[in-house]
Amino acid sequence: MKEKISIIGVGLLGGSLALALKKHGDLSLVGWNHRASSRKKAARLLPVAPSLEKAVEDAGVVVLCSHSSSMGPTLRQLVPWIQADTLIMDVSSVKGGVVEAVRGIPGIQNHFVPCHPMAGKEKSGPHYADADLYRGKVVFITPLPKNPHPLVRKAAGFWKKVGALPVVTDAKAHDKGVALTSHLPHLLAAALMHLYGQTRGKSPIFHQAVGPGFRDFTRIAAGHPAMWRDIVEINAGDIKSFLSQYRRQLAQLERNLGKGKSRYWMSFFEKARDLREKLQ
Amino acid sequence: MKEKISIIGVGLLGGSLALALKKHGDLSLVGWNHRASSRKKAARLLPVAPSLEKAVEDAGVVVLCSHSSSMGPTLRQLVPWIQADTLIMDVSSVKGGVVEAVRGIPGIQNHFVPCHPMAGKEKSGPHYADADLYRGKVVFITPLPKNPHPLVRKAAGFWKKVGALPVVTDAKAHDKGVALTSHLPHLLAAALMHLYGQTRGKSPIFHQAVGPGFRDFTRIAAGHPAMWRDIVEINAGDIKSFLSQYRRQLAQLERNLGKGKSRYWMSFFEKARDLREKLQ
Repeated sequence: MKEKISIIGVGLLGGSLALALKKHGDLSLVGWNHRASSRKKAARLLPVAPSLEKAVEDAGVVVLCSHSSSMGPTLRQLVPWIQADTLIMDVSSVKGGVVEAVRGIPGIQNHFVPCHPMAGKEKSGPHYADADLYRGKVVFITPLPKNPHPLVRKAAGFWKKVGALPVVTDAKAHDKGVALTSHLPHLLAAALMHLYGQTRGKSPIFHQAVGPGFRDFTRIAAGHPAMWRDIVEINAGDIKSFLSQYRRQLAQLERNLGKGKSRYWMSFFEKARDLREKLQ
Repeated sequence: MKEKISIIGVGLLGGSLALALKKHGDLSLVGWNHRASSRKKAARLLPVAPSLEKAVEDAGVVVLCSHSSSMGPTLRQLVPWIQADTLIMDVSSVKGGVVEAVRGIPGIQNHFVPCHPMAGKEKSGPHYADADLYRGKVVFITPLPKNPHPLVRKAAGFWKKVGALPVVTDAKAHDKGVALTSHLPHLLAAALMHLYGQTRGKSPIFHQAVGPGFRDFTRIAAGHPAMWRDIVEINAGDIKSFLSQYRRQLAQLERNLGKGKSRYWMSFFEKARDLREKLQ
């Protein structure tokens, strides 16, 4: 019998998962969205269940793909409906809060393994779903303290099926990592868009001077506002610490500008280039 | 007779110009680099002259493609060798200094029209030359106070031949525009690479957490260090003013983090997204 995979919240991430998993003949896919209009869109990608309960019953794997801050209540609701060996995963961007939120749900450690795929686009919704979204991307798995090893292995195996690279780590380390590499850059790009917005009315030159570099730098600022509002509030501590360090660096740059410090700037840009080239 | 076009400094920008102009059968291209090793590389893209003097004599158009801070001396050297109607252009990123540097060269206004194409890559050298580098890109033309109109029109016509969009503007306005849209983002991206470099040794998570967003955001930090050293020093005033405004914005964000200000953040990210989407 085919293993049933339930995708709850078929948007960009859930829809892309559906497209990627469709290639596996041994899986039976079912989707569910809370809103009727979203269920209609989801139905273009995979069969949609008549209710949340029907969507998860008999499922081998349930993936919660909504970037919801209500993970605790949702999981509490699902647990009575699933099988003894059902694996549940989420895909949300901050993990410490999720680990906290599910604490105390009876038996949760036998089902739920928190996950975060480092994949996305600046466009939301199932319309932009892409079967290759996860290919070659890191997926962080931040197990609950009492998750059984086989359950974590099953989670890792699931992500490998869609071409992703699972990395098991601690929720706190994860949140610090993405604060630096994802949340801080998002704030910085959004702040530059605000400065641009305040300035562009003064002369047509500002719009004319927008080139490919500016576009690359600010691309992430087009991300989903509600998702980013949640992220910066949930992970505020780590983001604040990096933002503060970053601001001190900028203050130092400002002090050194226009002082004829040719060697300082050469070494500053050489170091930045060397670090960036190593990321290729 | 075919019009002769001289490209002085055949690197990424000059090489790309050569490839784009080659498609025009009515032009005769000649290149020149100061270093013998660079002339050898240039020779793969276009005929190379035996001397700088030979490269520019009888030329209808001379394009100075080195990002050199020695524009004044170079132009002073060239003027005696060229024809009465030769157009000379440069491609450097800051224009105010160039306009200053050429002041007082006899007859310079009849030849030299300062230009800045908003085109480039994070890779340097003729090896990365691309015939489509200029296609659809803005090229700023910042005329000298006494440039004759026909000369400026000739400059605009030249850039249209390679698919670029000429925009005539004032050198000071130009330098302010690119300070916001190019020079500031470059500093910000380079500063984030430094913060990443200082942090990554503390845990493998930081490297693992580098996703597509971080790569987009920091791509420009891989640019040519000597070119960027010159840019930030020459345009320090405008950059400093925007950097200071930007730092004040970041300080405000930092104060608002972790305060449960859900509506503030929602509106902050919505505004950033709306501004970014308008740039598409």
